[in-house]
Amino acid sequence: MPGGCRPARLNTPRTHRGVTPASLHAGGTVASARPATLDAHWRAANYLAVGQIYLMSNPLLTEPLRPEHIKPRLLGHWGTSPGLNLVHTHLNRVIKERDLDALCVWGPGHGGPAVLANSWLEGSYSETYPDITRDAEGMAKLFRQFSFPGGVPSHVAPETPGSIHEGGELGYSLAHAYGAAFDNPGLLVACVIGDGEAETGPLAASWHSNKFLDPVHDGAVLPILHLNGYKIANPTVLSRIPEAELDSLLKGYGHEPLHVTGDDPRKVHQAMAKAMDQSLDRIAAIQRAARSGSGHGRARWPVIVLRTPKGWTGPATVDGVPVEGTWRSHQVPLPSVRENPDHLEQLEAWLRSYRPQELFDEHGRPSPAVLDCVPLGRRRLGSNPHANGGLLTRDLPMEPLERFAVPVDKPGATLHEPTRVLGGLLARIMADTSKRRDFRVVGPDETASNRLTALYDVTGKAWQAQTLDTDEHLTGDGRVTEILSEHLCQGWLEGYTLTGRHGLFSSYEAFVHIVDSMVNQHIKWLKTSRLLPWRAPVPSLNYLLTSHVWRQDNNGFSHQDPGFVDHVLNKSPEVVRVYLPPDANTLLSVAEHVLHSRDYVNVVVAGKQPCFDWLTLDEARSHCARGAGIWGWAGTESGAREPDVVLACAGDVPTQEVLAAAGLLRDHLPELAVRVVNVVDMTRLLPREEHPHGMSGPAYDALFTADKPVIFAYHGYPWLVHRLAYRRTGHAHLHVRGYKEAGTTTTPFDMVVRNDLDRYRLVMDVIDRVPGLAVRAAHVRQTMADTRSRHHAWIREHGTDLPEIADWTWTG
Amino acid sequence: MPGGCRPARLNTPRTHRGVTPASLHAGGTVASARPATLDAHWRAANYLAVGQIYLMSNPLLTEPLRPEHIKPRLLGHWGTSPGLNLVHTHLNRVIKERDLDALCVWGPGHGGPAVLANSWLEGSYSETYPDITRDAEGMAKLFRQFSFPGGVPSHVAPETPGSIHEGGELGYSLAHAYGAAFDNPGLLVACVIGDGEAETGPLAASWHSNKFLDPVHDGAVLPILHLNGYKIANPTVLSRIPEAELDSLLKGYGHEPLHVTGDDPRKVHQAMAKAMDQSLDRIAAIQRAARSGSGHGRARWPVIVLRTPKGWTGPATVDGVPVEGTWRSHQVPLPSVRENPDHLEQLEAWLRSYRPQELFDEHGRPSPAVLDCVPLGRRRLGSNPHANGGLLTRDLPMEPLERFAVPVDKPGATLHEPTRVLGGLLARIMADTSKRRDFRVVGPDETASNRLTALYDVTGKAWQAQTLDTDEHLTGDGRVTEILSEHLCQGWLEGYTLTGRHGLFSSYEAFVHIVDSMVNQHIKWLKTSRLLPWRAPVPSLNYLLTSHVWRQDNNGFSHQDPGFVDHVLNKSPEVVRVYLPPDANTLLSVAEHVLHSRDYVNVVVAGKQPCFDWLTLDEARSHCARGAGIWGWAGTESGAREPDVVLACAGDVPTQEVLAAAGLLRDHLPELAVRVVNVVDMTRLLPREEHPHGMSGPAYDALFTADKPVIFAYHGYPWLVHRLAYRRTGHAHLHVRGYKEAGTTTTPFDMVVRNDLDRYRLVMDVIDRVPGLAVRAAHVRQTMADTRSRHHAWIREHGTDLPEIADWTWTG
Repeated sequence: MPGGCRPARLNTPRTHRGVTPASLHAGGTVASARPATLDAHWRAANYLAVGQIYLMSNPLLTEPLRPEHIKPRLLGHWGTSPGLNLVHTHLNRVIKERDLDALCVWGPGHGGPAVLANSWLEGSYSETYPDITRDAEGMAKLFRQFSFPGGVPSHVAPETPGSIHEGGELGYSLAHAYGAAFDNPGLLVACVIGDGEAETGPLAASWHSNKFLDPVHDGAVLPILHLNGYKIANPTVLSRIPEAELDSLLKGYGHEPLHVTGDDPRKVHQAMAKAMDQSLDRIAAIQRAARSGSGHGRARWPVIVLRTPKGWTGPATVDGVPVEGTWRSHQVPLPSVRENPDHLEQLEAWLRSYRPQELFDEHGRPSPAVLDCVPLGRRRLGSNPHANGGLLTRDLPMEPLERFAVPVDKPGATLHEPTRVLGGLLARIMADTSKRRDFRVVGPDETASNRLTALYDVTGKAWQAQTLDTDEHLTGDGRVTEILSEHLCQGWLEGYTLTGRHGLFSSYEAFVHIVDSMVNQHIKWLKTSRLLPWRAPVPSLNYLLTSHVWRQDNNGFSHQDPGFVDHVLNKSPEVVRVYLPPDANTLLSVAEHVLHSRDYVNVVVAGKQPCFDWLTLDEARSHCARGAGIWGWAGTESGAREPDVVLACAGDVPTQEVLAAAGLLRDHLPELAVRVVNVVDMTRLLPREEHPHGMSGPAYDALFTADKPVIFAYHGYPWLVHRLAYRRTGHAHLHVRGYKEAGTTTTPFDMVVRNDLDRYRLVMDVIDRVPGLAVRAAHVRQTMADTRSRHHAWIREHGTDLPEIADWTWTG
Repeated sequence: MPGGCRPARLNTPRTHRGVTPASLHAGGTVASARPATLDAHWRAANYLAVGQIYLMSNPLLTEPLRPEHIKPRLLGHWGTSPGLNLVHTHLNRVIKERDLDALCVWGPGHGGPAVLANSWLEGSYSETYPDITRDAEGMAKLFRQFSFPGGVPSHVAPETPGSIHEGGELGYSLAHAYGAAFDNPGLLVACVIGDGEAETGPLAASWHSNKFLDPVHDGAVLPILHLNGYKIANPTVLSRIPEAELDSLLKGYGHEPLHVTGDDPRKVHQAMAKAMDQSLDRIAAIQRAARSGSGHGRARWPVIVLRTPKGWTGPATVDGVPVEGTWRSHQVPLPSVRENPDHLEQLEAWLRSYRPQELFDEHGRPSPAVLDCVPLGRRRLGSNPHANGGLLTRDLPMEPLERFAVPVDKPGATLHEPTRVLGGLLARIMADTSKRRDFRVVGPDETASNRLTALYDVTGKAWQAQTLDTDEHLTGDGRVTEILSEHLCQGWLEGYTLTGRHGLFSSYEAFVHIVDSMVNQHIKWLKTSRLLPWRAPVPSLNYLLTSHVWRQDNNGFSHQDPGFVDHVLNKSPEVVRVYLPPDANTLLSVAEHVLHSRDYVNVVVAGKQPCFDWLTLDEARSHCARGAGIWGWAGTESGAREPDVVLACAGDVPTQEVLAAAGLLRDHLPELAVRVVNVVDMTRLLPREEHPHGMSGPAYDALFTADKPVIFAYHGYPWLVHRLAYRRTGHAHLHVRGYKEAGTTTTPFDMVVRNDLDRYRLVMDVIDRVPGLAVRAAHVRQTMADTRSRHHAWIREHGTDLPEIADWTWTG
């Protein structure tokens, strides 16, 4: 592009207010574009964006603007809106001309007014919300509802037709775009990246997603880096480095940059149309070559760098201070319109500068010129079904679990690695979707470490960069997708599921906190989507958290954190599900359930280390269906009498310790009636009013009793169980053992001892809490305490657990 | 560098096992280095790294290796260790030759054996841990303790002398390095970045830190990108793109790359020494120019790209499969040494390949040749005081708070923006540290939005990129540091405080979850550091969370999340502190406390919007000292009788609603004895055994009573209060209102209504829960319910709150 980057120029106060048809035709060099109509569409969208921020009534300025036409509270973000409108206008053109199946991810989603304006212009909005008609009355409602009580959010949100990306927290647009493009070979996903967002870590890494995009089986992503120069109150890094340096960066990321720079709409329209055409030609050529087998080497995909002033076409100065082209136009450039007549006058002039009488007819309907560039039907960005992915979702094929289950003749007699068993099921699904290509497993380089290696028998790991002879399982079209970035794994899978496909994110339990903030946003998205009848349910976002807190002998304290469960349980109960299957068959049953589910975030915590098999598949199924239940074979209660004590457990290691404690109690205190309860679904502990899975009071009491001591060995932070169960009748008798940040450790058993979750400690808890047992069982208690001391000395001497611990098995 | 990048070559099974002095001298081209001694040091470090992973005894191989010499559990990461050892060796040389004050941040901190080996070689380890002497006996202990019960972690950790960076979660090394370099003009911070870590988002963004580093007032960062080609089970992105593309990327990041590539130790030593010299010459030139005023434009700092095989010098093949130079050498290359005689033999050959008899004397002391490159005293990387930053910490200057406090004649009569008031204090501290330069405020572009603008009267915003005439407050030497990346803000501040300086991170409450995982790691670091007598306490990491959940009228649902408090309260109570000051003066008092504190993570949640002033500075001080207290002036109890109900609150908006509810109760039900309790320090609610700030049972009961209804209006998720207070006598009578993900909203009052935290709902709660009141006060309850309905209709009509709400003030 001629001209290059001169930010200083963009900062000059602007006077342009659109272009006349004549001037555009005169200078028009874009082959197929009709520049005047493009400009008309852009002006209309700008007009509608300003209207949404300011106007309560008088939408078409049919009378002079008065204070009572203005909203009492001015909310919204103008700064990015004209740029988004420009992109939307030009996407419309190429979609229509090339009959493209296209989505757009709007990274600067704060610019909600822009995306709403375009959706209304193209008619998608009125089809989605018939009350907001495409005429003056609908325009008035569109304006009034924006960021108004009972109305719509000021950002791009689930309520926005055509969107799969909330404009809240920044950083994830490009990852979402790639997720949408994976396995959608016919799809173009444009992605506008604000230069503020481009400073975030997740976005900085997202550029490398192109090393994982297969031009044969995946669609294309067209990033549009929109440099308007500022974030809230500061310039942005990428807008203030030399253009050559930015080019070097983008080329280093593997992209071929095309520049569009300017503040003269006429020239920008031409340059943008040209850049769009060049980009799409280049994408088409890449895909053609790859799909015909004539491509070689990794593709260098285009990226458009669009430099236009922040708040472009808005007030150049306000109260004598430059606003357009500076950070001051970030939100509401004229803040005191109701109170300040000068501001009111300036607003009216600003609105009229778009010449609304040319853009809308007397009934407020967009003129034919405005709509000239707009595509039809499902090609419209606001109506593309990929952005309402549930419409396209198909159930996953799933063979009967019997095929993958482990045989269990008696509980606790055999060992399996639960995640390896799960790998069999996942591999089968992967194979059965090899044609449909609607299932992916993502992870930060831990698929093998997490023992899901059966997947590699049926698919490879996506990889477009260089390969060596010694590499294993790397293929261009693999559907296991691994990069050492939890942000990218999460962002890709969000984009993939929101466009209607299925997947699983397998991660280290401790480090999944890296995406705490992302899962917040995703849960909020799903919560809101569920309230919108027009949004079809999408496949759930499924986590498999393994390498968990109790098995960090190789890595220690820095790798111990079971708090992701706490984090998600703070969120909307309609969306959140948490499972802690205690063995291989329960993991299979849970996996079947979550992979079939819709609109949830499912967190499954499971071990990858050898773990005792407790339940047959049938038992596992019925246990999972209940979510929590009594393991009668493990306890010593009999008949109708309530037990003396309940040993409860959730999680694989706690379950093992509780069973070992139950065995010790059976041996040492055979007269004690012990009940063992295992909890798979943590939300069962909540009251019914607080979660759809919550147990009724009587059901809870039937499991845990109303007044007997309950010693609960929990996988994570112990207070979580109290937080879930504090309303229960028997809560005062509930004693929870869990993880408490006790520090470095070296064997799994040493770990449970340091956290007072071990079998010996649990037996001591029982003796301390069952009335009357303290004296009677004092010698047993002393034996337990002595064994713990012996363990302490032994492990420091030998580096391994006491033989009685290492060799323990259940003898029921 | 000649040769360039040929990963394939690095993959060739290796046979080199170090270099003979003769060959090195023959080929030696490095001016001042003594190549043979560098190689001796490197071999010694490699030997010690292998020894730590494998050996229980026989550390010097004085007898043939037998299974009983081998640890029973083999833990640790070999793959990265030889590369780290190479870097350490060469840093030693340049530090010694140039008398540098230097730190190194070891990004691939899994390579703990390497850093421990070097620390032992240079003597730092024995000085820190006198029991681990620098001789055969100490070497045996060094080996045995590694990742062994009662020993040290397998990663670089707080226990490692010279470290400020835990090798746990990856992504933060470069941000830590910049944080350490800021305001340390005499310091060189080398930073080894693994190519796995380089795939993470935070690391990808961290490269741009160079736009914020002032060559005059800050030290230098020398990134060393160590491409060994693999992460756990996969190749890495940056190792598999063409070298030209990588160069383009690094240049785009603003760096000047220098390459060191090879698998022949002799050549690599030479190339590495040359690259080190070139880098340091370049850094010195940049600093000289900038400091003499002759520099112009942003500096292009060097970066070293070091490509050596993963697991270099380890077993080339194991059981017929290539290991050296592949991902298979990531952890323990020979996994079955105790059981498999071939592996045992291979291990012995591997250890002997370093020629330990040349490296250690008969007593196991390092030979003079090994120690030739090692610097002395505090110049050693393991002994540099910057890595034990508390040694260098000075108390912050702090003028009396009276100077900044707001006058309060009576409660609730005036409004101030608390964060703006805090800005006055921060600005004063900033001014008073203008020479010392040991205080920074970091944030993601929100310092102005968060109304801390007084800072700009005394300092600027750090900025090294282009500036325009319209810019404000950008300066090269500013100590407000803003980038739209919470990861960088957090990483910088961690590096800054761990090297002994002070700071504050001001962030959006909802989006601080972006750094959940980072704060986990930092809290773990501090928890462990506190147990190490040799680590001096460092300034606390202080968060100011504002733009909080109750004031998201401009942004809505996506910007609402008060759960960071929940997240940190899962962590070690020794470290974590949480404050919710309800007004400007309490915020000042809290700020004074946290800025003086050490070794904590302090979370302060405070509003930026106008907020009623409740307490004078003296009252605020004594309230903060208690952490929670009765506001007698707000209640209606009298004399010794216990109140009928307690209205408790924590947070600014809940406090306002509770006071409004107290006013309504006083007006409508004057006979009711109401107590108002405000909680500033959330951890006061915990039992004493659970947190150092926890209240005793009697103290809790004296505040909240043992059996009266308590209606608690809490800033965040309501169950947090239950999780803190579930052990309290009166817990069954505790009813908490808080935030519950209720969805989009548009005014602050609408928000509290949607979450049932509003004054009317609180009054209804009181009526529902005080025995006998339901009938007597039915009409009051109805009035409250009617007002809520009126609010609902009014706000949807007018877009603003009911006048009686908008104009409410406290009339005590």
